Amino acid sequence: MNDTTYASITTALESIEGLDVLTKPESTSAYAHDRAVWAAYDVPVAVVRPSSTEQVRAVVAACIEHRTPLVTRGAGTGLSGGANATSDAVVVSLERMDQLDVDVEHRLARVQPGVVNDDFRAALAAYGLWYPPDPASSPWSTIGGNVATNAGGMCCVKYGVTGDYVRELEVVTGTGEVVRLGRRTAKGVAGYDLRGLMVGSEGTLGIVTEVVVRLRPLPPDPTTVIGNFDSLEDAGRAVALIGVAGISPSLLELVDRGCLEAVDAWRNMGLAGEAEAVLIGRSDVPGSAGEQEVAELLRCFEEAGATFTAASVDRQESEALYAARQFAFPAMERLGVVLTEDICVPLARVPDVLARLRSIGEAHDVKVATIAHAGDGNLHPLLVTPPGDEAAGVRARAAFEEIIQVALDADGTVTGEHGIGLLKRDGLTRELSPAVAAMHHAVKSALDPHGILNPGKGLPL
Amino acid sequence: MNDTTYASITTALESIEGLDVLTKPESTSAYAHDRAVWAAYDVPVAVVRPSSTEQVRAVVAACIEHRTPLVTRGAGTGLSGGANATSDAVVVSLERMDQLDVDVEHRLARVQPGVVNDDFRAALAAYGLWYPPDPASSPWSTIGGNVATNAGGMCCVKYGVTGDYVRELEVVTGTGEVVRLGRRTAKGVAGYDLRGLMVGSEGTLGIVTEVVVRLRPLPPDPTTVIGNFDSLEDAGRAVALIGVAGISPSLLELVDRGCLEAVDAWRNMGLAGEAEAVLIGRSDVPGSAGEQEVAELLRCFEEAGATFTAASVDRQESEALYAARQFAFPAMERLGVVLTEDICVPLARVPDVLARLRSIGEAHDVKVATIAHAGDGNLHPLLVTPPGDEAAGVRARAAFEEIIQVALDADGTVTGEHGIGLLKRDGLTRELSPAVAAMHHAVKSALDPHGILNPGKGLPL
Repeated sequence: MNDTTYASITTALESIEGLDVLTKPESTSAYAHDRAVWAAYDVPVAVVRPSSTEQVRAVVAACIEHRTPLVTRGAGTGLSGGANATSDAVVVSLERMDQLDVDVEHRLARVQPGVVNDDFRAALAAYGLWYPPDPASSPWSTIGGNVATNAGGMCCVKYGVTGDYVRELEVVTGTGEVVRLGRRTAKGVAGYDLRGLMVGSEGTLGIVTEVVVRLRPLPPDPTTVIGNFDSLEDAGRAVALIGVAGISPSLLELVDRGCLEAVDAWRNMGLAGEAEAVLIGRSDVPGSAGEQEVAELLRCFEEAGATFTAASVDRQESEALYAARQFAFPAMERLGVVLTEDICVPLARVPDVLARLRSIGEAHDVKVATIAHAGDGNLHPLLVTPPGDEAAGVRARAAFEEIIQVALDADGTVTGEHGIGLLKRDGLTRELSPAVAAMHHAVKSALDPHGILNPGKGLPL
Repeated sequence: MNDTTYASITTALESIEGLDVLTKPESTSAYAHDRAVWAAYDVPVAVVRPSSTEQVRAVVAACIEHRTPLVTRGAGTGLSGGANATSDAVVVSLERMDQLDVDVEHRLARVQPGVVNDDFRAALAAYGLWYPPDPASSPWSTIGGNVATNAGGMCCVKYGVTGDYVRELEVVTGTGEVVRLGRRTAKGVAGYDLRGLMVGSEGTLGIVTEVVVRLRPLPPDPTTVIGNFDSLEDAGRAVALIGVAGISPSLLELVDRGCLEAVDAWRNMGLAGEAEAVLIGRSDVPGSAGEQEVAELLRCFEEAGATFTAASVDRQESEALYAARQFAFPAMERLGVVLTEDICVPLARVPDVLARLRSIGEAHDVKVATIAHAGDGNLHPLLVTPPGDEAAGVRARAAFEEIIQVALDADGTVTGEHGIGLLKRDGLTRELSPAVAAMHHAVKSALDPHGILNPGKGLPL
């Protein structure tokens, strides 16, 4: 971007009433990237922090006029580089749009995009209500970012992902108009599902300025079950058995030995023992049906060869059983730089794919430890390299690309819940046929005719 | 269409290997319209009945070459005219594409579009599996038609609509390519949700040639509860109370006095009695939690002023309690020509809207009786006119348009599950803002650049 263009876009932004505009590199550099440090990024021309839909609309209008790209971000907890900035872009941080209203009568909430997921959860609990999507980033990540990536989490195995809860969106479009997509009613088939198209589109089709989500009653306290396994394959078979049996646990997570050891090294919990993998399941079905569900889960664990199982309804004991999963990611981060994979495969392929992950780590001399939303087949191999070790970083990237291919070969997808951003564009290109890739670009051009919305992200190459 | 064009498209179709082509009006006229007899239709140029995806692809290629519109249809049970033909169009009937495969291990099924909904249900029951979407047309309607309209039914209140079950689609696009959209895995965020965009698009964005749906285990036998009410408003309040309480019945239907009397007149069941409205609910939760859910439903009925309530777990008695709902629509059809409305409103607005429906019927001197998927706020006012009475038909159309406005005024939608087709294009235009209407047309042009896919349907004017 040349100096004249730079000056004219910043002048245009600064003339928007009440808009907070940052242009000094010492301020804007904090908004240069999300958590995908492996992906390219640069310090943007400016960062704006709007506090109203009208300000967002005016920013988009200015960027259309000055042909300036826009990168929208929430809390910057993304793992694919979807919010990484470029040197010619304006970053729109929605952190100041953080209002919410709860409509108890209809079990709906109207939420601005900057509301933090856990804050939203806490506000709802006061009404006995619940918004299920629970990405691991929920203490920091915002509802807007969750919508942009169609975020998942632990709850998905029973309760679905962000898009399953979004009823209506207010969006500033690529032509600078404020629109409402979707509807407030439980059902509706009037027109194309543009609401659904917007969810997970990573800021490439519009800027979400308000979200209406449906809510559920708070679920009862769950029973937690745990199973230790001698091999990843056994644990994978337990998951597949649960799938075939048609049981719907409210959580079904896997933690492998690499993660268990990392947790032990940090918190000295003695989790690893002899186990190669631990499965943690939960049932939140009340009464006798819940007892039966727990029995069925334990039966599947045992049938697959669990060497130890336990179950608890006690809240504190439940939390203790869950500790291995809770501390796995931060424990791995203590060991080095973590590159998080996010493949998703059919349940019957989970055992094979888990075995392949281990051999890929060995072949590339990279530490690979895996946590997984096992009940969904959504695996998060964590590739850990020593800080500053560039050669190890190169090996990790090679392992990362090979894992993507393993997912595709297993009829899976390159991203279960983290999104394409920058890191997975090549993988997406491999996943989609050329004709489907062309459909993506046709839709993008139709809804972002000026090509200013997060260009270079989320789409096949 | 002039004779030369006519001859060249039929010649092109007849040269497609193995394709069944009908051109005689005595054959093609049976494919001229769906059940929306109020909407315009004409006898098409030809009807093709492909038996493979390759034949569908070749038909689309021929229609692109000859700039001939295509109208795709399943069983023709649609209620909005979405499958109504024009005199220049080729109708693609998918009735011969009726194969299905069940993948028990992954609880998925691969279904061709011509499979009849109830046949699919029967095939799955043999495996203890279940595909919930259950439109009233399920004995005849096909999975392809269900996908094209995002069909609902009784199950939606707990189990969602067709789109909630579609994992993957094979589609012949507007550019004549065969693509696969979506994925087989439980989660996935790779690229735009083009699968979701295709669902409910009424044949305007592509022709669905294969559907992969997820399945559930067959639910346990339900308990049926019934409540009689002195007024529609009381019944509506019971529905709103159930919503606020966060209870999830597996069915919650309303039948008003007009329908009850029609059923009595037909089958002499003595249903109407003193009741102005009957609510029928079901719970399929097993064990003690189910008993509690039934008690909660009855409490809501009674709190809203039910004059009579009953509950039964016995299968035969359950069916008897359900008879009023089951026979309501055919009973109304015995009384004249039925124009079926399909509005959907927020639950708290149901009592008001029900009252408005009655007064609209009186104002226009049209018999209006209502059945409703009450738990979703999806109301089906049935406007009945004597066969051949044109003046009554005109009055019914006026009432129909007024009901659409009532839905919009109540923050509702003009169609909960039947689709836009031809009958609701004006209503859709009123529901969407001009900017959202423009987004619809931009997406349509992007994915159907030749404008041949069911032109004139499903979109705002």
